[in-house]
Amino acid sequence: MLDKLDWRYAVKKMDPTRSVPEDKVAQILDAIRLAPTSSGVQPFEVFVITNPELRARIREAAYDQSQVTDGSHLLVFAAWDTYTAARIDEVLARTEAERGPSDAMVAYYERLKGMYLPRSAAVNHDHAARQAYIAFGFALAAAAELEVDSTPMEGFDADRVDEILGLPAKGLHAVTLLPLGVRASEGDWLLPMKKVRKPAEAMFTVIG
Amino acid sequence: MLDKLDWRYAVKKMDPTRSVPEDKVAQILDAIRLAPTSSGVQPFEVFVITNPELRARIREAAYDQSQVTDGSHLLVFAAWDTYTAARIDEVLARTEAERGPSDAMVAYYERLKGMYLPRSAAVNHDHAARQAYIAFGFALAAAAELEVDSTPMEGFDADRVDEILGLPAKGLHAVTLLPLGVRASEGDWLLPMKKVRKPAEAMFTVIG
Repeated sequence: MLDKLDWRYAVKKMDPTRSVPEDKVAQILDAIRLAPTSSGVQPFEVFVITNPELRARIREAAYDQSQVTDGSHLLVFAAWDTYTAARIDEVLARTEAERGPSDAMVAYYERLKGMYLPRSAAVNHDHAARQAYIAFGFALAAAAELEVDSTPMEGFDADRVDEILGLPAKGLHAVTLLPLGVRASEGDWLLPMKKVRKPAEAMFTVIG
Repeated sequence: MLDKLDWRYAVKKMDPTRSVPEDKVAQILDAIRLAPTSSGVQPFEVFVITNPELRARIREAAYDQSQVTDGSHLLVFAAWDTYTAARIDEVLARTEAERGPSDAMVAYYERLKGMYLPRSAAVNHDHAARQAYIAFGFALAAAAELEVDSTPMEGFDADRVDEILGLPAKGLHAVTLLPLGVRASEGDWLLPMKKVRKPAEAMFTVIG
């Protein structure tokens, strides 16, 4: 596992003639679906885009980063704009459908509504976005495990991507992009570079 | 990989007599260190706590969730309270130390400072926290891969945990907890329950 995570890097140049096999994409999506989220709410959706015209427009909104169109698949992670009673009720309904009725579950999600619904949309969206980032981490780790190249991206005009995909009408806001593809054999300045990470002693404090 | 991610669940009852082997903990920390972050800044630290007294105090601040003390290791993810020139300069220095001097790198991180430093601490901390969540996802996926049990936690009094660990003086703020341990063979209400996830069609929109 660690060798794959070390192999992974933020590909700067993808080979536009090569595609990620669909079965590997499906496994990456499964990993996203299996990612844990706060109270199991899964407050985000993912758009899986191969359409060339759409990706060309998103590339423009992403400061012309070529991986958006040179990869074969573009994942757009979009978090809920806020929590609503209807959205939480849907989680409860799904849980009861899978596990059977439960008064404790009803009470749990009622408390959750009591906590989330009075908060501002900004606070709720931020919380939802953090859950999407856990799944984003799962997608990156799964892609690495499958030796699928990817480029995690935050640098894009989220409002423009929202507009391109019609996200506001769905109560969603784009938070990250993840082009999947095959690294080009040349033309990537980052590929020959050494991976730089904080030394363990600067990142971890062990308290025994 | 997917079978391990499916095996993973948020353990509610850990066996206090059993410990996660140190070599597996080390691999989980390596996964955290290898997680990608925006511009490679890695704006967080992780506290690895085995000390019983300290974990007892954190358990109190975490609504008495037993995994905090019944697990063998507690990871506390703490994100930078804000971005500062000194912190960004350290990233640049490390990058140049590893890859050699680069005017392009200097210019890149100068632009980053121009973008981050005028922003409020709240906006910067939120951005740093999101990076910590990617690494949190890596830790969860790595633990699953190694068949190490864990419980992702957001439900705790972050200000109290900050105080217990002296984080404000380090410019850090706790964002998540991750007890690592061994699931108890009985006494966990969640263990026999079916994992509930959104169906793929409710989570993914494929645009071809």
